[in-house]
Amino acid sequence: MKSKLDIWKIGGNVVADENQLNAVLTAFANIQHSKILVHGGGPQASDLSAKLGMVPQMIGGRRITDAATLEVVVMVYAGLINKDLVARLQAKGVAALGLCGADADIIRAEKRTVADIDFGYAGDIDPQQSSQNLKSFLSLDMIPVLCPLTHNGQGQLLNTNADTISAFVAQQLCKDYQVNLLFCFDKPGVLLDPEDSSTLISKLPHHKYMELKNNGCIVDGMVPKLDNAFTALSNGVDEIRLCDWQGILKNPPGGTLLCMN
Amino acid sequence: MKSKLDIWKIGGNVVADENQLNAVLTAFANIQHSKILVHGGGPQASDLSAKLGMVPQMIGGRRITDAATLEVVVMVYAGLINKDLVARLQAKGVAALGLCGADADIIRAEKRTVADIDFGYAGDIDPQQSSQNLKSFLSLDMIPVLCPLTHNGQGQLLNTNADTISAFVAQQLCKDYQVNLLFCFDKPGVLLDPEDSSTLISKLPHHKYMELKNNGCIVDGMVPKLDNAFTALSNGVDEIRLCDWQGILKNPPGGTLLCMN
Repeated sequence: MKSKLDIWKIGGNVVADENQLNAVLTAFANIQHSKILVHGGGPQASDLSAKLGMVPQMIGGRRITDAATLEVVVMVYAGLINKDLVARLQAKGVAALGLCGADADIIRAEKRTVADIDFGYAGDIDPQQSSQNLKSFLSLDMIPVLCPLTHNGQGQLLNTNADTISAFVAQQLCKDYQVNLLFCFDKPGVLLDPEDSSTLISKLPHHKYMELKNNGCIVDGMVPKLDNAFTALSNGVDEIRLCDWQGILKNPPGGTLLCMN
Repeated sequence: MKSKLDIWKIGGNVVADENQLNAVLTAFANIQHSKILVHGGGPQASDLSAKLGMVPQMIGGRRITDAATLEVVVMVYAGLINKDLVARLQAKGVAALGLCGADADIIRAEKRTVADIDFGYAGDIDPQQSSQNLKSFLSLDMIPVLCPLTHNGQGQLLNTNADTISAFVAQQLCKDYQVNLLFCFDKPGVLLDPEDSSTLISKLPHHKYMELKNNGCIVDGMVPKLDNAFTALSNGVDEIRLCDWQGILKNPPGGTLLCMN
């Protein structure tokens, strides 16, 4: 019988809203079994870039990471947001440990091969090269708080999507844990009409997702998020849910539950 | 018989110089027993402050940390510098783990009581409240890389001098390890005349230090650095040395060795 592990990913918009953040961190603190928090920080990185006179470049919801932008995301993700979350969780009695992928070699990546688009210092995760050290931290009853940065093992930090990191970690750990993965973002879940919350899909089977994706009903950032999530689900993650902060607080939790069949 | 632990503190000027940094990290990587790296980053924090249109305020070599400056130092110390050092060390085969004082609750502090000067979000370490988790990481053969930030246990990050952090960690761990503490900075060691490297004091007994301090021969940032260091030495740290990067590379190491008698 595997023990339970909750992995919660919170997006940058949730982090930016004091009320939402506090509610989510309190709920996270109340989880009585093993847990990991993964966070984004895109809006905050864009803010710092703007203050420094830089213009963020995005293609298909993904940031183009030139050398100056890499410095910005390292400062914002691993510094500003990660350490603030760790300090807040410590105040709630959580033995939080802030990590990026370079720390203890937990997530290795390769600089994305340039096809049509040069993503710069963007990293695609290399599962074979990544260490098993998250398990070591969990076995010490520490609670990892992961920011969306990886490294290539040759001294280069890389920018990696936080959804992708969450899905990778969930898959890596589901051999040893019964993993529940939750994506907390600024929508109540997967919506048939992104502008209308009443069109929430409470249970989304994979074949239905493929249909909605092929029809162009699900687009933009939701596509890589759900592609990643379904891959994780097919690789042994026990449960995957997407919701907003209010969905987390509901009992049973709200939002969209993914299923293979 | 205690096992050996080397704690090296590298100042922001050493971090800023590519050649010095690479030489020091290579030497650090070659240490075959337990080790911890502590880093500063004052010049880099001042650079970012300037880019953001802020004017750094220093009194007696210590930074005045208002709310905006705290964000800057958190980004620079815990993000930019810490994660770059971790990635570089990983590339040299070191199982580096970047930490601030909030991570795993390793260094608690109290916001400095305001006397004549309001230091803002500056933290004075509270040894009783700090956890023993550095030992847990060392027992996993991980190599902590510490940035000069602490937290108050109530969600507030605080700025704490890196020399002070090094001396605290050395004292905390000397109960279990034979600790050698090395301060690597931009001078060859303690100098009788700060402008003349040929006045290096190779061995500095405590009574001689008190004499030089009282005479006004040792001033500014060297005073808290040496006060901290002698306190650590009197509390059981085995050996304390101050040198520049070239002193590290010498065999036997150069610089100034402190001694109680």
